[in-house]
Amino acid sequence: MRTSQMLEHLMEALRCLPGVGPKSAQRMAFHLLQRDRQGGLRLADALSQAMTEIGHCQTCRTFTEEDVCHICKNPKRQENGQLCVVESPADIAAVEATGQFSGRYFVLMGHLSPLDGIGPADIGLDLLDFRLQQGGITEVILATNPTVEGEATAHYIADLCQVHHVSASRIAHGVPVGGELELVDGTTLSHSLMGRQRLS
Amino acid sequence: MRTSQMLEHLMEALRCLPGVGPKSAQRMAFHLLQRDRQGGLRLADALSQAMTEIGHCQTCRTFTEEDVCHICKNPKRQENGQLCVVESPADIAAVEATGQFSGRYFVLMGHLSPLDGIGPADIGLDLLDFRLQQGGITEVILATNPTVEGEATAHYIADLCQVHHVSASRIAHGVPVGGELELVDGTTLSHSLMGRQRLS
Ligand SMILES: [Zn+2]
Ligand SMILES: [Zn+2]
Repeated sequence: MRTSQMLEHLMEALRCLPGVGPKSAQRMAFHLLQRDRQGGLRLADALSQAMTEIGHCQTCRTFTEEDVCHICKNPKRQENGQLCVVESPADIAAVEATGQFSGRYFVLMGHLSPLDGIGPADIGLDLLDFRLQQGGITEVILATNPTVEGEATAHYIADLCQVHHVSASRIAHGVPVGGELELVDGTTLSHSLMGRQRLS
Repeated sequence: MRTSQMLEHLMEALRCLPGVGPKSAQRMAFHLLQRDRQGGLRLADALSQAMTEIGHCQTCRTFTEEDVCHICKNPKRQENGQLCVVESPADIAAVEATGQFSGRYFVLMGHLSPLDGIGPADIGLDLLDFRLQQGGITEVILATNPTVEGEATAHYIADLCQVHHVSASRIAHGVPVGGELELVDGTTLSHSLMGRQRLS
């Protein structure tokens, strides 16, 4: 028997967070109530604002509350003509942290997965096709995850690049096969950017 | 360089949760944005409601949004005259889960800690004194944590019970010394309730 319905409700709601089970939810709820109500209120505001106002960049599809994200808006990021294609917005943060890349990004928000019904249009390849057609992109760096689906997606996009006569390369050394780009350390990721190999 | 200020802000706000570092905060934020915006909004509501409306029970000091909590309101929980004293609301959940206790609770919301300036009034012992004086309590079960502070607090309360001629007992077997009550499994806690020893 619990002493508060509202507390029950909070513990249940906390379980929408990945990796949070009943025990951690209870610990989190009690911690906030006992020691950090201001932090809890700030989190409530940040959550409702982010969930309602964050959409996708019209140019690169990453998360942003503006029409076009800070990176796409920055003219300096357009100079070298490089476009790095990643699976998720978290991968942008990982590549940025290497300090090795000064071009732009394109975020697939997933990867091709025919068995799950996820085709080219679902990962924004119509928009990518349009961007390649517009010109200004000299090299596409394929930084999808080194998984079966990530590789298949990279090859599909390499073919698209060939149609538009744009060079495509795949990040290489160091990224462990079967792993996730987001979890790789900065040095490994720097190496894989420098050791990229041309695909088309 | 990040692509969204609002996302930055959300990741920072998530770190008020215990055990959440920069990496998990990022994973949580992306998970909610990508897969569970409804869950994120429900969490925002549950948080702001809980942080503003949950207070303390006037009788037992546990968390509740009402004046008196469900347990204190229940006349059946008063019949056997037992009062179980615990350090935190989470401990109520742990004791309730054993199914071995049908009395009422008193929550200290901490323990005596003279070095940190936490004295009897800070853990509600004036209210406990008042309740013992009112009568109706035949036995106080001291279920504070088996730590130095928890033991000292239990002995202090046992002395208070003696003044009011109320029997005091301490939960016993099984609770590992130096551990936290909240983390003990149900069977161990059942044993320690049954094996309690009279202190005064
Ligand atoms: Zn963008
Ligand atoms: Zn109560």
